[in-house]
Amino acid sequence: MSTESDTPQKEEEARQQLIDLAAEFYDQFAEGDVPRMTLPTRTKSNIEYDEDKDVWVYGDRTSTRSAKSVSGAEKLLKATYTIDFLAQQLEEDRSSTLRELYYLSESWDLEEAQFNSQDESNDLVEDLEIVSEVTREDFHMRPEESGATLMGPLQIREQTRRGEREIHCQEDVGEGGYQIPNNPDTIEFLDHDADFVLCVETGGMRDRLVENGFDEEYNVIVVHLKGQPARATRRITKRLHDELDLPVVVFTDGDPWSYRIYGSVAYGSIKSAHLSEYLATPEAEFVGIRPADIVEYDLPTDPLGDSDINALESELEDPRFQTEFWREQIELQLDIGKKAEQQALASRGLDFVTDTYLPERLTEMDVI
Amino acid sequence: MSTESDTPQKEEEARQQLIDLAAEFYDQFAEGDVPRMTLPTRTKSNIEYDEDKDVWVYGDRTSTRSAKSVSGAEKLLKATYTIDFLAQQLEEDRSSTLRELYYLSESWDLEEAQFNSQDESNDLVEDLEIVSEVTREDFHMRPEESGATLMGPLQIREQTRRGEREIHCQEDVGEGGYQIPNNPDTIEFLDHDADFVLCVETGGMRDRLVENGFDEEYNVIVVHLKGQPARATRRITKRLHDELDLPVVVFTDGDPWSYRIYGSVAYGSIKSAHLSEYLATPEAEFVGIRPADIVEYDLPTDPLGDSDINALESELEDPRFQTEFWREQIELQLDIGKKAEQQALASRGLDFVTDTYLPERLTEMDVI
Repeated sequence: MSTESDTPQKEEEARQQLIDLAAEFYDQFAEGDVPRMTLPTRTKSNIEYDEDKDVWVYGDRTSTRSAKSVSGAEKLLKATYTIDFLAQQLEEDRSSTLRELYYLSESWDLEEAQFNSQDESNDLVEDLEIVSEVTREDFHMRPEESGATLMGPLQIREQTRRGEREIHCQEDVGEGGYQIPNNPDTIEFLDHDADFVLCVETGGMRDRLVENGFDEEYNVIVVHLKGQPARATRRITKRLHDELDLPVVVFTDGDPWSYRIYGSVAYGSIKSAHLSEYLATPEAEFVGIRPADIVEYDLPTDPLGDSDINALESELEDPRFQTEFWREQIELQLDIGKKAEQQALASRGLDFVTDTYLPERLTEMDVI
Repeated sequence: MSTESDTPQKEEEARQQLIDLAAEFYDQFAEGDVPRMTLPTRTKSNIEYDEDKDVWVYGDRTSTRSAKSVSGAEKLLKATYTIDFLAQQLEEDRSSTLRELYYLSESWDLEEAQFNSQDESNDLVEDLEIVSEVTREDFHMRPEESGATLMGPLQIREQTRRGEREIHCQEDVGEGGYQIPNNPDTIEFLDHDADFVLCVETGGMRDRLVENGFDEEYNVIVVHLKGQPARATRRITKRLHDELDLPVVVFTDGDPWSYRIYGSVAYGSIKSAHLSEYLATPEAEFVGIRPADIVEYDLPTDPLGDSDINALESELEDPRFQTEFWREQIELQLDIGKKAEQQALASRGLDFVTDTYLPERLTEMDVI
């Protein structure tokens, strides 16, 4: 998948890929074959960790949707109607949400082509992403909500429907920061004065870093992850790393769910294994909160619950966490039986995180 | 509570109110009285609907926290420590989140003053708001997450810690819009070309309106509510109404939970009854989705579940919904047994909402 922000050309390519897909069905019909679509099998057992690229990818097994059965034929019919809609949307330079697609199908003339649930239309769009090798963003499909923000010494140009906007992500924005658009490939990086990118899980900590001027003092682009990050957030993080050659570090709560947030920034997710190369930043490093921090800084904690313990144990088996560092940290956490939030650092004062914790840790990690 | 954006003066007033409160405890001690704090009773039965102001307010019943009992004394001790922290925070022009306050209490020298849970510290801050008649925003307490946005023909000046920022909420922002800061009283409205304010529940619909240029065509400020709106979102909506004399309309899904979203914009909520005059916009009108729309436009629906039916029945008893309009709509909905989402309008095409639905409805409501 292309990483350039050359939008009109991308739209045309996306449209062409979709039409080629529909043309395949046509050719299969013309040759007297039963139309079909072949996809990698999208089950957990067919997802592999690519040791070279450090991300999740699909394995070799494939499944075929064939018009031989009624349900297979209906799937292909729905795919054809969706391709038609998407191709038209791209031609008109419009966009829509996954939910709109679901509702819009009610206006299609053939009842068999209409979706029965939003899961069905969501899955189909993912199938089309995989088969066409075009991302949902390039189909102009928006998510329902995005809403993460960025703050730091970065000047961008965003291509909006109302023309270009040049925005400096510290000087031209309010305290809320720059709102990352649904498709960050509409952004061009014009200039920057950044030394690294810091992805932060919680809004409270993001606001603390901005209030304390951490982005200004250390020339850092602060990306708010807002819990499990949206695709747009992961995409812009990867582009900041790849295009501006900036180190990326991830700062979350100290619990197994937050380690998964780090994992989704760094290694991609099982759900979007087909997009790992587009979304994942395998070079991203984990800052904390580490179980060792809980001990070292005597942080206020909560006890691990059963689901925390299960999640930690399954991370011990997870290929993404098969490193000396993670094994040590996870075993330590199971041993002490505690977890801590980012904001627990406030127990040492509101400036502790920016005056002591982050500078020490980032020096140790060779980031500053 | 003041509605002006005269920030330094407000900070000084807030600080003084807090110190006066602590001084009261001191005077009570000095006079040989047992220190105490009197608050309106914060139970549902002591919350009344003010028919004149059209918002929720506390009734006449009060409760007293007295140092006569150990638990009462501990509450006052915690209040004193919190007042000390907040007064210092205001003096230094800093801010913090509710969660940081909870953790920060671990650094206090008296163990009895430390909070046992975040609920306890949250409740105390609400008590202090009520007693001091200063809002949490003016104590410089931030929420964990805010993140709603605004798009429209409005030029603002935001007072940030890094100086003033002048931003036009169409021309100087990306497609994501202007990020509303945690305390919108740091904003001054400089100029506008708006005819009304449209508050929208879902991100998908907000993006649809912006993509279709509805804000440009009808000179409307589109405020994204993001589900149940944050205080900052309700506050800026009220200020847009009061200070710029703009009609406010609310556009949500067509189900009982969304009517409550409308209710919280218009009439305030039981939880923040002490802030109704600061947050509620009783003149706000409801656009839809109305149960009548489900019938008229033959929208795709989901059946009402038991909890939907219970919520509708309790709305029939709710003083806020005691109007001809709401009774008719709620009874119709119970009758047809269906609910619909905003985006169900997409079943009539992606432009139906901006070309037909909203123009018709807003003309009928005399807004355009």
